[in-house]
Amino acid sequence: MFENHNNRTELSELGEFGLIRHIRENVELQNASTIVGIGDDAAVIDNGNLRTVVTTDMLVEGVHFDLSFSPLKHLGYKAVSVNISDLCAMNAKPQQITTAVAISNRFSLEAIEELYEGILLACKKYNVDLVGGDTCTSPSGLVISVTAIGTAKAEDLVYRNGAEINDLICVTGDLGGAYMGLQLLEREKKVFLENPKLQPDLEGFDYLLERQLKPEPRWDIIEKFKLYNIRPTAMIDISDGLASEIMHICTESGKGCQIYEEKIPIDHQTRELAMEFGLDPTICALNGGEDYELLFTIPLSEYEKIKDRAEFSIVGHITDKSGGYNFIDRQNGQHELKAQGWDAFKKNFDSE
Amino acid sequence: MFENHNNRTELSELGEFGLIRHIRENVELQNASTIVGIGDDAAVIDNGNLRTVVTTDMLVEGVHFDLSFSPLKHLGYKAVSVNISDLCAMNAKPQQITTAVAISNRFSLEAIEELYEGILLACKKYNVDLVGGDTCTSPSGLVISVTAIGTAKAEDLVYRNGAEINDLICVTGDLGGAYMGLQLLEREKKVFLENPKLQPDLEGFDYLLERQLKPEPRWDIIEKFKLYNIRPTAMIDISDGLASEIMHICTESGKGCQIYEEKIPIDHQTRELAMEFGLDPTICALNGGEDYELLFTIPLSEYEKIKDRAEFSIVGHITDKSGGYNFIDRQNGQHELKAQGWDAFKKNFDSE
Repeated sequence: MFENHNNRTELSELGEFGLIRHIRENVELQNASTIVGIGDDAAVIDNGNLRTVVTTDMLVEGVHFDLSFSPLKHLGYKAVSVNISDLCAMNAKPQQITTAVAISNRFSLEAIEELYEGILLACKKYNVDLVGGDTCTSPSGLVISVTAIGTAKAEDLVYRNGAEINDLICVTGDLGGAYMGLQLLEREKKVFLENPKLQPDLEGFDYLLERQLKPEPRWDIIEKFKLYNIRPTAMIDISDGLASEIMHICTESGKGCQIYEEKIPIDHQTRELAMEFGLDPTICALNGGEDYELLFTIPLSEYEKIKDRAEFSIVGHITDKSGGYNFIDRQNGQHELKAQGWDAFKKNFDSE
Repeated sequence: MFENHNNRTELSELGEFGLIRHIRENVELQNASTIVGIGDDAAVIDNGNLRTVVTTDMLVEGVHFDLSFSPLKHLGYKAVSVNISDLCAMNAKPQQITTAVAISNRFSLEAIEELYEGILLACKKYNVDLVGGDTCTSPSGLVISVTAIGTAKAEDLVYRNGAEINDLICVTGDLGGAYMGLQLLEREKKVFLENPKLQPDLEGFDYLLERQLKPEPRWDIIEKFKLYNIRPTAMIDISDGLASEIMHICTESGKGCQIYEEKIPIDHQTRELAMEFGLDPTICALNGGEDYELLFTIPLSEYEKIKDRAEFSIVGHITDKSGGYNFIDRQNGQHELKAQGWDAFKKNFDSE
């Protein structure tokens, strides 16, 4: 007891992914029913009939959300959404969730009701059942941890490691919106704190606010895959930004990639607000994160199934590993793709 | 945004169980695969072959543990143990866990390694696989949320609601030890803070320290139930104290109970230290909590299977609901049993 450490390695030196890799190296799986452990969007368990798919995501006040502009109901909704999104990224059907919530005495019952209203609204929308969890006090702030459980047939599951050379790299929806929504909210909070009489000026950017405050997992896309008979070779959800996520797919698949700037889908509101903030919209889309769109690869032979559908954008293709991770700009200049996305540790530890 | 509430109900008015009841009332289950939702030790999901059993427990620094006397390795071990204990209380076999950990930059990589060493040690001991989770920063303190997944045949599962009139009420091991271990650690911390040169005096109470710092879920008992052909009618694990837990079984089963003071198993170290602290050992056993022993009921007809086994104590019996919850003291005096156990909200909100 009252121990001390002589050697100290800062977590910021590793970052979140470094830490996960480090933990993963020490894990030995023992049970035959464990098909996939740490390292994909979710774990996969054999249950005889179907596969059970499990994922956990935690939201921490002051790190993942700011209650001065995130209504509790939206926050509850988002805590469920981000977990459902991980199940979608495995091509699995969401079924149940558990919630663990730590609350300080700053919060009243009415506040917690609002939080659970959002949680249950998302449950209803995505047809999942809240089946259990834990509630406890916290010395300060609010922490929400959600575990989501889904099912899939073994042959329907899509992992991060299945991308093949020449596969097309596709994304759903558009990117960078959630990040710009956050920039807007943070600016208006600052204005409000400096002059509480001024009303926040959020007009014309509803879409971006919704992207940030109430993200929707792309369950609709999973259903469309069935409808259009599309089976991705690899898939991940975009929580940390396109650059970071495509590099996860490439690392796990042992491949390289080419991403084309002109192909990246960006909404006009995102573009407009990025300009206003003096930011490059492409950088926002590459590194912004929290869009919860799906990033997936399909064989070139499936091109016809994708090409005319508004919900998909083909942003590049998979190459040999030795080709590295490349970004081709509008002037046809080639750059090394770097993941400067939202790395939970680096970002927060650096700013402290 | 920037919302305010006019009505405010303090969480301390409801307590943890009141809040859980409140949340449970608003939950509508939608999926056919959800067999049991909120309200037992764990949720139960139909997976065709077996039932999948899921439970989540969260440990928060400053509420559930004090790092000045809880080594991180023990804490990791305990975070897993308390969840395995919930699966044992359902008579289910633990299989997988996920962990969500929020860490402030006060912690180094070496500290997190120590935490995961404890987590993985418990995994090895209880033959479960760590299959995923989340790691993120926290503005202050450490939060660990573990979700444990197990399996059981439908007919083997034991719920809280199966107790019948005249059933014997049994507990495993002994009670109150974990609570006295905590009292001892808190006293020695105080001494240390007042005079850092004094070494903590913990000698002779190893058992109590272990009960507090490194609780063991009673997986051995689940195996013995099979061996002895015992099938409890109702079961719960003792995390909040015997009084609180038997009342959960009675409430869910719609029954009453009689508990006999002289039958409650208390270790001599617990008794000795309680006396030294001027505490009533019986009260420590009834309300102390964190012992993670199993409390279960069996039909009177099964008495012979239990009576001569050192690992079980028969502490009372189930009565009609109208009989209420009764505690019979050594002088044969009858008292109403009250749950003054470790209620996360009341305790902590009161002391703030």
